[in-house]
Amino acid sequence: MHEFTVTPYRVEGDVDYDRLLDQFGANALTDEQLASFPQPPHPLLRRGVFYAGRDVERFTSAASAGETVSIVTGRGPSGPMHLGHVLPFYFAKWLQAETGAYVYVPLSDDEKYFSKNLDFDEIHEHTRENLRDLVAVGFDPERTRFVVDTADADVVYPLAAEFAADITPATVAATYGDPPNVGLGFYPAVQTTHLLLPQLLHGRHPTLVPIAVDQDPHIRVCRDIAGKQRYDVEKPGALLSKFLPRLGGGGGKMSSSGDDPSIYLTDDRETVREKVSKHAFSGGRSDVDEHRERGGDPEVDVAYQLLFSFFEDDDETVERLAREYRAGELLSGEMKAHAADRIADFLEAHQSRRPEGPIGEVVEPYRLTDTERARLRPQVFD
Amino acid sequence: MHEFTVTPYRVEGDVDYDRLLDQFGANALTDEQLASFPQPPHPLLRRGVFYAGRDVERFTSAASAGETVSIVTGRGPSGPMHLGHVLPFYFAKWLQAETGAYVYVPLSDDEKYFSKNLDFDEIHEHTRENLRDLVAVGFDPERTRFVVDTADADVVYPLAAEFAADITPATVAATYGDPPNVGLGFYPAVQTTHLLLPQLLHGRHPTLVPIAVDQDPHIRVCRDIAGKQRYDVEKPGALLSKFLPRLGGGGGKMSSSGDDPSIYLTDDRETVREKVSKHAFSGGRSDVDEHRERGGDPEVDVAYQLLFSFFEDDDETVERLAREYRAGELLSGEMKAHAADRIADFLEAHQSRRPEGPIGEVVEPYRLTDTERARLRPQVFD
Repeated sequence: MHEFTVTPYRVEGDVDYDRLLDQFGANALTDEQLASFPQPPHPLLRRGVFYAGRDVERFTSAASAGETVSIVTGRGPSGPMHLGHVLPFYFAKWLQAETGAYVYVPLSDDEKYFSKNLDFDEIHEHTRENLRDLVAVGFDPERTRFVVDTADADVVYPLAAEFAADITPATVAATYGDPPNVGLGFYPAVQTTHLLLPQLLHGRHPTLVPIAVDQDPHIRVCRDIAGKQRYDVEKPGALLSKFLPRLGGGGGKMSSSGDDPSIYLTDDRETVREKVSKHAFSGGRSDVDEHRERGGDPEVDVAYQLLFSFFEDDDETVERLAREYRAGELLSGEMKAHAADRIADFLEAHQSRRPEGPIGEVVEPYRLTDTERARLRPQVFD
Repeated sequence: MHEFTVTPYRVEGDVDYDRLLDQFGANALTDEQLASFPQPPHPLLRRGVFYAGRDVERFTSAASAGETVSIVTGRGPSGPMHLGHVLPFYFAKWLQAETGAYVYVPLSDDEKYFSKNLDFDEIHEHTRENLRDLVAVGFDPERTRFVVDTADADVVYPLAAEFAADITPATVAATYGDPPNVGLGFYPAVQTTHLLLPQLLHGRHPTLVPIAVDQDPHIRVCRDIAGKQRYDVEKPGALLSKFLPRLGGGGGKMSSSGDDPSIYLTDDRETVREKVSKHAFSGGRSDVDEHRERGGDPEVDVAYQLLFSFFEDDDETVERLAREYRAGELLSGEMKAHAADRIADFLEAHQSRRPEGPIGEVVEPYRLTDTERARLRPQVFD
C-alpha cells in the first residue's frame, strides 16, 4: 500500500488518485460527463489527466444550452511558471473558446507571502512575469479577468471579510492543518471570494474550477459557504486533475523545488531537449539490444506520458508511439526526442505570444473595469 | 477584592484601574509626563481620565520640539455614537490643535462585522452617521484622515497582509481568546495597520494612541510587530483612559447595550435632562433634609463625575461643586441640572457642526488622497 500525503500545501509520496477521491469525497468522471463536454474533448480530458470532479454536469449542460458559465483557475505567483502550471490555463482557454465561458484567474500573492519565505517585492516580480505568461495563453480579454489579491484588494478584501465570518478556525485547521500565521488562517475566505467572483459579478450561474486535485480542499470550503445561501450563488463545480508527471518519474507533482528540473515556459528548444534527454525517467530497457528485443513500457516513460497527457493531440499518433515503444521499434532516445520537439514547439508558440512592454498596459485589458469594481465594492460613500 | 474582566471584546465587573495596569504592563502617568503635554492640559488629562500610558514622553518631547507626531484613535461603527465614544476624539482634536499632530481615525467596519450580529449594510449606515459626528469634532482636514477598512481596503488589506505573516494564531488566542471566525483572527493585522499607517505614510515618528484601557491589547500586539523592525517604524505609544462613568454608576464602561441609557450625540437638551435626572446615580442623601445636614459624596455621584471628567473645564468651579456638594449646600437635583446643562451645551455645539449633505462630499477632505494611496498601495503594476 502506497503512503502519500496531499494537501494544498504539501504533496508527498506516490499518489493513489482513486483513494484520494474517496478521501476528498469527489467523483471520478463518468463517460456521460466526458461526452457532455464540447467534442472532441481536449486531450487533458480524453486522456484522463482531468479525471474527477464535482457538479461537472451543471457546467456542461448550461454551457451546451448557451447559458452563462464561468471558469476559475488560479495561480500562486511564487516563482516562474513551468509546464505543469500552464496546462490548466490552456485547457481553460480551450473551454472558453468552445463555450464562451468567463475565465477568472486569481493570483494569490497574499497566500504565497503567508506560506513561503518570500517578500512581496519578489512575489510581485513573479506576479508580473506570470501575468505575461497568462496573457500569452490567449484568453479573450472581453471575457477574462486577472485578479491580484493585493492589487485588487479594494474588491477582494471586503468580499473576503463577508465570507470570513462564516469560516471558523476549527474548519481551517481540520481542512489544512494549523495555519502558521493569521494570514494563512484568513486565506480560505480570500479563496472563496475568488471562486464566487464570477457569480457575484454576472449573477448566479455554474462555475467550473479546473485544478490539480491537491487544491480540492479550497473548493470544499467554498462550497460549504456557497451552500449557506446568504448569497445568491451556486456551489462552484470542480474538475480535478492528476499532476503532470515529474521528469524524474513517480507519482508526485511537477515541482519547482524537487530534485529533477522543471521545464520552464522560458526554456528554449536546446534546454528542453537537454532536460528531457537527461532527466526524463525512461520506460525503455537498459541497452538498445534488450529494448529492441523486449520492448519498453510507455506507462512509466515520462516522455511518452508528456506526449500522451497534452503534447501529442493526435490520438492515432499517440497510440502508434505506445505500440512501437512496446514492440521495441521505437527507442527511448527517439521517444524523448519526439517529446522534446513537441514541447519545444509548444513553448516557442507560447513565447512568441508572450507580450513585452509595460506590465500595466499589458494587463489592463484583463483587469476588472471601473464599472465592475464599483459593482463589487462596498457602497459606503456612494 | 473586586472581580472584573477587561478585554477588547468584554468589560465586566467593577474595574480596578491600577490592577489593570499591572495586568497589562502599562504605566501610570507621572507628574513629569503630565507636565510634558501642552499646558494647561486638557481636562481629560488633568482630571485623570487618561491615567496611564506607554512611551508617552516619546510623543510629547517630539511634539514640543516641533517634530512630526501623530495620533491614532479609532471607532468601531456598530451603532450611533454616545458621549463615551466621542470624548477621545475631542481630546485628539485638542492635541492636534496644540501640536500639529496628524490624526488618523480608522473605522473598523470589518471588525464589527466579525464580532457583532450585524450585516454590512447596517454597519455602513452607522459608519456614515459616525463619520458625520467625526467631522463635527472639528479636526484639521489637511492633517486628518478617516480610513474605513472595507472602503479603503486597497490600502488596508495589502499592509495588513504584510503584518499578518508575523502574527500567529497562538498570539491572537493568548491576547483576545479564541476568535469565533477567521475574520476576527486576522483583525489584529488590520489593527496593526491602523496604528502604523501614519508612520508608513509620513516616515518614522512617534505616534500616540489615546484609547480606553480595554483596547490596550491591540496596542501590545502592534508594538510587538513594530519591534520586529522589518519596517522603519517605531512602536506606537499609548495614552490609556478610564471609562466614562455609566449613568447608573459603578465602574463599568458607558455602553450602548447596558441597562441604563447612554447619552447619544443626537440627544436634545430635554432628553439629556431627562436621562441625567432619572438615571444618573446620585451621591446625594435619600432626602433633602439629610442631604443638607450630612452632605453628598461627589466621588460616586455620576453627574459630578461627568462634570469633573470633561464637561466642566474650570478647575475652580469643579472644586466649588464638590465642596458645596459635600457640605450639603448643593442638592443632587441641582448637580444633575448643572451637568445636564453642560452636556446639552456641548451636544448643541456638536450638533450645530454636524454636516448634512451627501456623505461622499462630506468625508472627501478627510479621505486618503490619490497620492497617499499610491504611496501605500503595493506597486504591482506601476
